[in-house]
Amino acid sequence: MSIPPSSRYPIPVLAELPEDIRQRMLAVQEKAGFIPNVFVVLSRRPEEFRAFFAYHDALMEKESGLSKAEREMIVVATSAANDCHYCVIAHGALVRIRSKNPRLADQLAVNYRSAEINPRQRVMLDFALKLAVDSARLEDADFEPLLAAGFSWEDIWDIGAITAFFALSNRLAALTGMRANDEFYLMGRLPVQKPPAS
Amino acid sequence: MSIPPSSRYPIPVLAELPEDIRQRMLAVQEKAGFIPNVFVVLSRRPEEFRAFFAYHDALMEKESGLSKAEREMIVVATSAANDCHYCVIAHGALVRIRSKNPRLADQLAVNYRSAEINPRQRVMLDFALKLAVDSARLEDADFEPLLAAGFSWEDIWDIGAITAFFALSNRLAALTGMRANDEFYLMGRLPVQKPPAS
Amino acid sequence: MSIPPSSRYPIPVLAELPEDIRQRMLAVQEKAGFIPNVFVVLSRRPEEFRAFFAYHDALMEKESGLSKAEREMIVVATSAANDCHYCVIAHGALVRIRSKNPRLADQLAVNYRSAEINPRQRVMLDFALKLAVDSARLEDADFEPLLAAGFSWEDIWDIGAITAFFALSNRLAALTGMRANDEFYLMGRLPVQKPPAS
Amino acid sequence: MSIPPSSRYPIPVLAELPEDIRQRMLAVQEKAGFIPNVFVVLSRRPEEFRAFFAYHDALMEKESGLSKAEREMIVVATSAANDCHYCVIAHGALVRIRSKNPRLADQLAVNYRSAEINPRQRVMLDFALKLAVDSARLEDADFEPLLAAGFSWEDIWDIGAITAFFALSNRLAALTGMRANDEFYLMGRLPVQKPPAS
Amino acid sequence: MSIPPSSRYPIPVLAELPEDIRQRMLAVQEKAGFIPNVFVVLSRRPEEFRAFFAYHDALMEKESGLSKAEREMIVVATSAANDCHYCVIAHGALVRIRSKNPRLADQLAVNYRSAEINPRQRVMLDFALKLAVDSARLEDADFEPLLAAGFSWEDIWDIGAITAFFALSNRLAALTGMRANDEFYLMGRLPVQKPPAS
Amino acid sequence: MSIPPSSRYPIPVLAELPEDIRQRMLAVQEKAGFIPNVFVVLSRRPEEFRAFFAYHDALMEKESGLSKAEREMIVVATSAANDCHYCVIAHGALVRIRSKNPRLADQLAVNYRSAEINPRQRVMLDFALKLAVDSARLEDADFEPLLAAGFSWEDIWDIGAITAFFALSNRLAALTGMRANDEFYLMGRLPVQKPPAS
Repeated sequence: MSIPPSSRYPIPVLAELPEDIRQRMLAVQEKAGFIPNVFVVLSRRPEEFRAFFAYHDALMEKESGLSKAEREMIVVATSAANDCHYCVIAHGALVRIRSKNPRLADQLAVNYRSAEINPRQRVMLDFALKLAVDSARLEDADFEPLLAAGFSWEDIWDIGAITAFFALSNRLAALTGMRANDEFYLMGRLPVQKPPAS
Repeated sequence: MSIPPSSRYPIPVLAELPEDIRQRMLAVQEKAGFIPNVFVVLSRRPEEFRAFFAYHDALMEKESGLSKAEREMIVVATSAANDCHYCVIAHGALVRIRSKNPRLADQLAVNYRSAEINPRQRVMLDFALKLAVDSARLEDADFEPLLAAGFSWEDIWDIGAITAFFALSNRLAALTGMRANDEFYLMGRLPVQKPPAS
Repeated sequence: MSIPPSSRYPIPVLAELPEDIRQRMLAVQEKAGFIPNVFVVLSRRPEEFRAFFAYHDALMEKESGLSKAEREMIVVATSAANDCHYCVIAHGALVRIRSKNPRLADQLAVNYRSAEINPRQRVMLDFALKLAVDSARLEDADFEPLLAAGFSWEDIWDIGAITAFFALSNRLAALTGMRANDEFYLMGRLPVQKPPAS
Repeated sequence: MSIPPSSRYPIPVLAELPEDIRQRMLAVQEKAGFIPNVFVVLSRRPEEFRAFFAYHDALMEKESGLSKAEREMIVVATSAANDCHYCVIAHGALVRIRSKNPRLADQLAVNYRSAEINPRQRVMLDFALKLAVDSARLEDADFEPLLAAGFSWEDIWDIGAITAFFALSNRLAALTGMRANDEFYLMGRLPVQKPPAS
Repeated sequence: MSIPPSSRYPIPVLAELPEDIRQRMLAVQEKAGFIPNVFVVLSRRPEEFRAFFAYHDALMEKESGLSKAEREMIVVATSAANDCHYCVIAHGALVRIRSKNPRLADQLAVNYRSAEINPRQRVMLDFALKLAVDSARLEDADFEPLLAAGFSWEDIWDIGAITAFFALSNRLAALTGMRANDEFYLMGRLPVQKPPAS
Repeated sequence: MSIPPSSRYPIPVLAELPEDIRQRMLAVQEKAGFIPNVFVVLSRRPEEFRAFFAYHDALMEKESGLSKAEREMIVVATSAANDCHYCVIAHGALVRIRSKNPRLADQLAVNYRSAEINPRQRVMLDFALKLAVDSARLEDADFEPLLAAGFSWEDIWDIGAITAFFALSNRLAALTGMRANDEFYLMGRLPVQKPPAS
């Protein structure tokens, strides 16, 4: 595997990984054209890898009152508060793709308060940021703006659980010195070219 | 289930939970004499429950260069930095039981710098605390005291991953308003009475 | 005096202390069964010792609109904000004894916002914490919730003066490296056994 | 002028601006293809506009021991510490163009400690960040790593003065709610296409 | 020039400075009786000197809805938040002279919240301080108290721009280790003696 | 008593105060020419007044390895960190008088790092400031620079205890809204005029 140095820890050889993990990595490579470093770096701990992605998928892939773009917005905004290289850059690409707004991820990476978001999303990110950086002060009153903005209690769990999961993820990235793949930087920045009508 | 109000979210009825989750909860009840609220509160989201405890067990139950007491010390010290009611009180009980020092958890909950720990554990907790509260500043130089204290790179991953996992856990507890069961407060504080010789 | 190392400074010999200080220490030993380290550590400076305990008693022993349990709650919550080993652990014992709630001190040591307190006590602790950690921002508006909760101006002075006194106390404990006596950890945790009827 | 709403303050009509300011704006439009909003927003205060850009040019356009890319790196890294939407996004484009590294600006916007910079630039940014966010603690010892890395005293003045100037600029952007032009987001991200040989 | 060591950088010889800068310094000496060190220290960079003082004069000397005393109050209060030796002491003298209140500067240097200011000035300083120390959180709602207190949008620009300019100035002072001239300490503290009637 | 409003609490009538307190206030008035507000404000709580001034005198009036000027320097520098109006202004006067340096108090009020102090005093204030604002992190290593600078363990206790006492004092001032008497502002700023030789 010719992945460039992307971690403080040695990178496993793909062929030697457990079959389920290898298949997952090949599947993501098939879809994205490359293997994001989070898969590569975490694969050396198979049990933790499986739990990590099971948790990730349970939150990020399921049906939810939050759109997939909104879920990625939470990731980028809270990861920016932790200055997390990998999560801001990799999930910034997903924000661009899922929101179809090529400016939004860069804005969220700087300051979500001046990003091109709607009032509902602003309330969502205010809550997520408080949970991310000052969880001890989260109180019942913090749920009121969310409910007033139309979020259900299940939606709020999703907001909170995504924030919590990336609190974990940001720290794994800091621990390992995980770096974003070069491919992420440009993803979603250019208009998708429609194939010519045949 | 007569669990007292321990969460902002409604508590599921044990009998209606998926069988694997129900069995896990009954098993812990069998062993501990009660069901810790983290099981009760998270059980309403079965997929997330399974990933959470799979991750937990992968870090906390396996063989490691860190003793089980040391792993719980990381939990209490980093959770104290986040002022997390559930994690400090519940895992404080585990620190007492596993370290056999009835004072240690209370000390870690206040200030790990004046706790009854050895120099190796001090280095371990300095690293964990930096990752917990200031992960963006973690750099190569922070690994040197750990290596000098005899921790292997795998041990360091364990320290970091436990810290990361409880960054998640602290925020789930804040989100749900999770409360510690009354049973935790006294666990491990009294000398274990040996059964009389028969 | 067989006190274990409880301070960065040498511990005086009880027999050599000024008579008033020696008598005070013997009286507390008579009542509590041991001499709390704050007496031991501070006794080497008799003038300061006398002023310290005169101030302490003027605030903590007098009649007040605050119950003795509430006064100890202020001590534990503000000392927790300063991560003060001695004050949290020693006064945690007093919280348990005076509130007759064996869980309350541990809760206050972690996060007073999720402790088993009533709304009046919450207002009291919000004020105390602001004065303890951000006194420059205390303004007239901060007194309004206290007055609305039924505290008199004299009660508010008591809240503030107790907070101020333990700002001093926390720093003396940090200076001297004062450690909590082992006896404090278990005090007030077990139900008091009534003597058998004769 | 069809500039989109880019400020809390009304935008002047280009034709009504003083001639020197109008010429400067037309010149930048000629060169860049658009007028960056900092010109548009500040133009309503001609005296301040002239001083602002005179200062800017004195620091950013002159000969210096710092390359132009390095100067823009200081801008992005210190503006990121202030979460400044306009400065991070607009000067991020300049970092990309001047460093010819299409990833560098995004990395600096997240965390300069994990950006693709050399050790000399790391020292430069450590100094700039300390001056930007904690200037009261800057002391003689902070100059030593710069001198050891080969910076001259004049270079250090440049590092400090650029940091200081953008401390001003970040706050003007926050005051006015200045927004980055859409053009900046993609600038410098794509390889420059060489004109076909004729 | 017998200026005492007032900077980390060598002080230029007055006679060798560009004529416009030399004239400005002689003019201020004529008026004040001494040359404030900010002129002396910055004069070694003539282009930057000219831009700095052009900006300064555009904000501090012009007609404004803010009195000159109020403008200096912004300087002292925001510079105090940055612990800036030169700016607090030198502009403290100007606050005393322009407000004719010999106590006001010392009060602002400690805590503007307890200074002898009127409610309008309190609102002004709240805004200035937020912009000075937490500009990323400045939002539309922060303008409302200013408008309610009678400040026009132009006045608000002045408040913000003065704050921004001294964010620059504080950092130049920190960079150079600029020290306040001895003359500033007593200026404006004593009642002006009226000349005897002839 | 024609004291201007100097507290949130009503000011007692001097004639009605307990005799010992009244005598102390008259004595200070005799010596200073006015009664500092700290006496006036605290006198309504006689027991606390007596303990407060007994503690104060035990630290500030006794023989010590610290000069009286140095002790007042600790008061001003730590009170400045708490933005305490009364303590900085009133004890600033004492710094001027006792150090015979009319600039020193203003410098300490802004930033002790750039004040006219010697290296020994710098070490003293570094320790005092850490204890004042971050006491939980005070550790054995913090005592080493003090010992190396020639401070004895008793001197260090004095530094720490003065810091601790003014942590109390700053908070009492914040609680009561205590204001500095007008007389303090000019004290020690003018050269003492020698009486003419008779």
